[in-house]
Amino acid sequence: MLYLYSPDQQDVYLRLLKDALPDWPIACWPEEADAEKVRFAVVWSPPKDFFARFPKLQAIFVLAAGVDALLRRGDVPQDVAIVRLTDAGMAQQMTEYCLYGLLHYQRQMDIYLQQQKAAQWIQQPARLADSLRVTVLGLGQLGTHVAHDLKRLGYRVSGWSRRPREIDGIACAHGEAGLRALLPETDVLFSVLPATPETRHLLDAKRLDLLPKDSAIINAGRGSLIDQNALLACLDKDRLRFALLDVFVEEPLPENHPFWRHPRIILTPHVAADTVPEEAARQIAASLRTLAEGGAAGSLAGFVDRARGY
Amino acid sequence: MLYLYSPDQQDVYLRLLKDALPDWPIACWPEEADAEKVRFAVVWSPPKDFFARFPKLQAIFVLAAGVDALLRRGDVPQDVAIVRLTDAGMAQQMTEYCLYGLLHYQRQMDIYLQQQKAAQWIQQPARLADSLRVTVLGLGQLGTHVAHDLKRLGYRVSGWSRRPREIDGIACAHGEAGLRALLPETDVLFSVLPATPETRHLLDAKRLDLLPKDSAIINAGRGSLIDQNALLACLDKDRLRFALLDVFVEEPLPENHPFWRHPRIILTPHVAADTVPEEAARQIAASLRTLAEGGAAGSLAGFVDRARGY
Repeated sequence: MLYLYSPDQQDVYLRLLKDALPDWPIACWPEEADAEKVRFAVVWSPPKDFFARFPKLQAIFVLAAGVDALLRRGDVPQDVAIVRLTDAGMAQQMTEYCLYGLLHYQRQMDIYLQQQKAAQWIQQPARLADSLRVTVLGLGQLGTHVAHDLKRLGYRVSGWSRRPREIDGIACAHGEAGLRALLPETDVLFSVLPATPETRHLLDAKRLDLLPKDSAIINAGRGSLIDQNALLACLDKDRLRFALLDVFVEEPLPENHPFWRHPRIILTPHVAADTVPEEAARQIAASLRTLAEGGAAGSLAGFVDRARGY
Repeated sequence: MLYLYSPDQQDVYLRLLKDALPDWPIACWPEEADAEKVRFAVVWSPPKDFFARFPKLQAIFVLAAGVDALLRRGDVPQDVAIVRLTDAGMAQQMTEYCLYGLLHYQRQMDIYLQQQKAAQWIQQPARLADSLRVTVLGLGQLGTHVAHDLKRLGYRVSGWSRRPREIDGIACAHGEAGLRALLPETDVLFSVLPATPETRHLLDAKRLDLLPKDSAIINAGRGSLIDQNALLACLDKDRLRFALLDVFVEEPLPENHPFWRHPRIILTPHVAADTVPEEAARQIAASLRTLAEGGAAGSLAGFVDRARGY
């Protein structure tokens, strides 16, 4: 039996999962299911100790691409597989979000907005896409998709990941040395990195200082990537043109946080890439069928390696 | 002989044209050329009566896509062909400009910027690209290029032109009836129409009112397209979400114009698509070779039909 917990979108997911898995018994919150029979759960931010009631649980499908919050809770039994979404319609939205920030930079909209406030008609020299160096941090399914899209649009795209990756047509670097070499050659830095101990403060004061003057940062991964105080210092020194931020160390961002009113920060409330229910249900149904046919959870797209943290 | 007048970029164009046409004699302002020998001129905004000094002039190549200002002056002899640029690197920039406005709309950045000012963390429902209806006004080389690019990015694209056009994969409408049918089905209206008597105030109060509530306008063609007072009234009634404007009836936009400080207007100083000198020189050199080999001016890409005005 499959148990669904997604109070905000219960109806849509129940309908989609029933359509995709017509032969499967599906229960959903707040129904009292026969807990002994529940083998699989599809969840979005379930209450603490939610999993304890299902002693035969084999796998949890999370309706999100990031599982850092779930892993931090520590209430998912070690023998239960965790599977996250890997694209589910999010990749195109990530491209859009990145592209918005990139065009804001390339087309100098930050400068034109300032000029508009002062009623100044000054034409800035044009910058063409093929002169713009974009670095994508994180080369999983989302990052790779974005890198390919941006390259197709004519930008000079590099990719970086913690471990070596090869991506057709994209110059890839990895590890600490790779990052140190790449940052000074970056006009716009875009991150979709997950929150893990390794990525925490990957952009600290020292590494932020490696970015060229007048570059920009777009963060659509996780807030812990950036040392927020170091970023503020960097923006206040006028070293960066701007930061477009979708994710923060604390979410919702506290009302008194200096990011809200910083003239060089554009912020959105963790909306860069919303799960598309149709795509999510399709991915989960395919994975469930693989498991039902005896496939290993470890082979599924989105299987979470708890040691890596994603 | 070819005479070049482009004071702001004299050096770069002289070098590019000499490279592309090594056997051609080329003179450039302020040189005193043998006026009798000048057959062709390459110009950007030449002084009044510039053309009168060259009695044997056959064709003028304008370093711009729009020739409305030149035609208004009325000092180009009727038997001299006028040729404008048709792409010259501008098409991709037009796509970028349109896309910036489109993403601003789709990703609801206007709303998020308002929320940021109020330190409000509110997630708006996501809008996917394939639910967004974009209408491109003007289906010459630039408009067609933009329409194709946007379609490739997943948007629902329609095109409109004054006279019937067919474009592979794009739903096209034309004429007054076509426009009246299309406007109510448009979320984002993008124009690259030239300034002609027919396009003047094509978007007047009546037609602006046909746009659905909460739609947006992006104008990268010519300012005369829009009745500016009607647009202000429309924005003040909260019918449109915003207008992104690159072109205006009077340029530079007068310092006291209400557009500068309108909260629903984003404006740029006629920079949507800058000529790329390399591309412009290539296009002009190819056309000059065609003429030198006996080709008709009327067959050139960018040949201006004075009756149409572009």
